[in-house]
Amino acid sequence: MTIRYPNGNQFYEQPASSKQSSRSIDFSNRGMTLEEELNKSNLYYLNHGTAVIHKKPTPIQIVSVDYPKRSAARINEAYFRRSSTTDYNGVYRGRYIDFDAKETKNKTSFPLKNFHKHQVEHMRQCLRQQGICFAVIKFVSDQSVFVLKASDLIDYWDKQALGGRKSIPRKFIEKAGFLVPYRINPRLPYLQAVDSIID
Amino acid sequence: MTIRYPNGNQFYEQPASSKQSSRSIDFSNRGMTLEEELNKSNLYYLNHGTAVIHKKPTPIQIVSVDYPKRSAARINEAYFRRSSTTDYNGVYRGRYIDFDAKETKNKTSFPLKNFHKHQVEHMRQCLRQQGICFAVIKFVSDQSVFVLKASDLIDYWDKQALGGRKSIPRKFIEKAGFLVPYRINPRLPYLQAVDSIID
Repeated sequence: MTIRYPNGNQFYEQPASSKQSSRSIDFSNRGMTLEEELNKSNLYYLNHGTAVIHKKPTPIQIVSVDYPKRSAARINEAYFRRSSTTDYNGVYRGRYIDFDAKETKNKTSFPLKNFHKHQVEHMRQCLRQQGICFAVIKFVSDQSVFVLKASDLIDYWDKQALGGRKSIPRKFIEKAGFLVPYRINPRLPYLQAVDSIID
Repeated sequence: MTIRYPNGNQFYEQPASSKQSSRSIDFSNRGMTLEEELNKSNLYYLNHGTAVIHKKPTPIQIVSVDYPKRSAARINEAYFRRSSTTDYNGVYRGRYIDFDAKETKNKTSFPLKNFHKHQVEHMRQCLRQQGICFAVIKFVSDQSVFVLKASDLIDYWDKQALGGRKSIPRKFIEKAGFLVPYRINPRLPYLQAVDSIID
C-alpha cells in the first residue's frame, strides 16, 4: 500500500541501516545545497516581514539573441561572468545586509581560495559604508554552518597576502563565528547571528 | 592633424550646425541611456568611497549549457526572466538603498505601466524594513531626471488599482520629487536627493 503525506508526497520507509545512525546529525537537509537552504530561509523571512534579502542573479555575458515572432526572446550564445560583488544582499532592521555563502568539504579549515579578490574588496567597501557584511560557511562533512564576520575573513585574507596561511582554521571559525543550527522554519535562522553582529 | 585629449581619446570638432543650439540643453548625454548614466555615477561613487551601489544582473533562465574542453562554458539556450526586485541596490551612509530607473518619452506624465507589480511590492517590503527606496525617472524629451520617493509612487499605484489615473503627472513629480541636475562627475548626482530623503 502506498502511504502518502498530507501534501500528497509518497512516504518511503527508510531502510533499517540508515536508521541506525550512531551520530546525532540531522540528515534532513542532505542533498540540499547551502544556496537552496539560504533561498528557502530568505523566502521565509520575506513572507514573515522579517527581512528582504535576495540572491543576485548570476551575471551573464550575452553574445547572441533571437527575437522570434510571437514567442519569447531566445538567448543563443552567452557566457558566465565573474561577479564583482557578493551573492546576497538586502535589508534587515534598517541595516544593509551583504554576504556570500560558501561550502567546503574540508574538515578542519576553510580554504581562502573559495573567495575571489573582488568579493573581498566588495565586502571591504560595504564595511566602510557601515553595512553588515559576513560569510556563511558550511562544512559539508558534518553539515555545520557558521556566520563569520567579514572583518575576520578580511583579517585572514590580508595576512595571506603577506605570506600567512591559505585557510581559516575551523577552530577559529567556531570561536569567532556564530553557529547556525538547522531548524524547520527557517531552515537556517542565520539572522540570529546577524543580530549578534548588529548589537 | 589629430588632436587628442589628455586621456588619449581623439578630439572631433563639432560641425557648426550642432553648435548653434537655440535651447540651453546639455546634449553631452544624448545617446546615453539612463542605465548607463547611473552605472557611471555609481562607479564614481564607488571609487570615491561615497556609496556602494550596483545594478543587479538581468535574471536569466538557463536551459542548455555546453562545457567544451579547454574553454569557457557556453550557454546555448536561455530566456530572460522578469526580476522580482528592483534593479539597483546598495549601501550609503549606513542605509540600505533600493531603486529602479525608468525612462519615458511622455512629456506631461509618467505612465505607471513602466513598473511591474513585483517591483512595487518589493519597494513596499523594503520600506517596511526602513530601507531608502525611490524611483529615478527620466523624461527623455527634455532630458530631465527626478528622484521620486517610493511612498509617492506607491500612493499613485494603489490609487490606480482603485480606478485612479494610470500615470503620475509631471507637475506632481516636479513638486514632490527631487530634480537631479546633470554634472560632469558624477553625471547624475542623485545621492544629493537621497540625502534629502534620509534627513
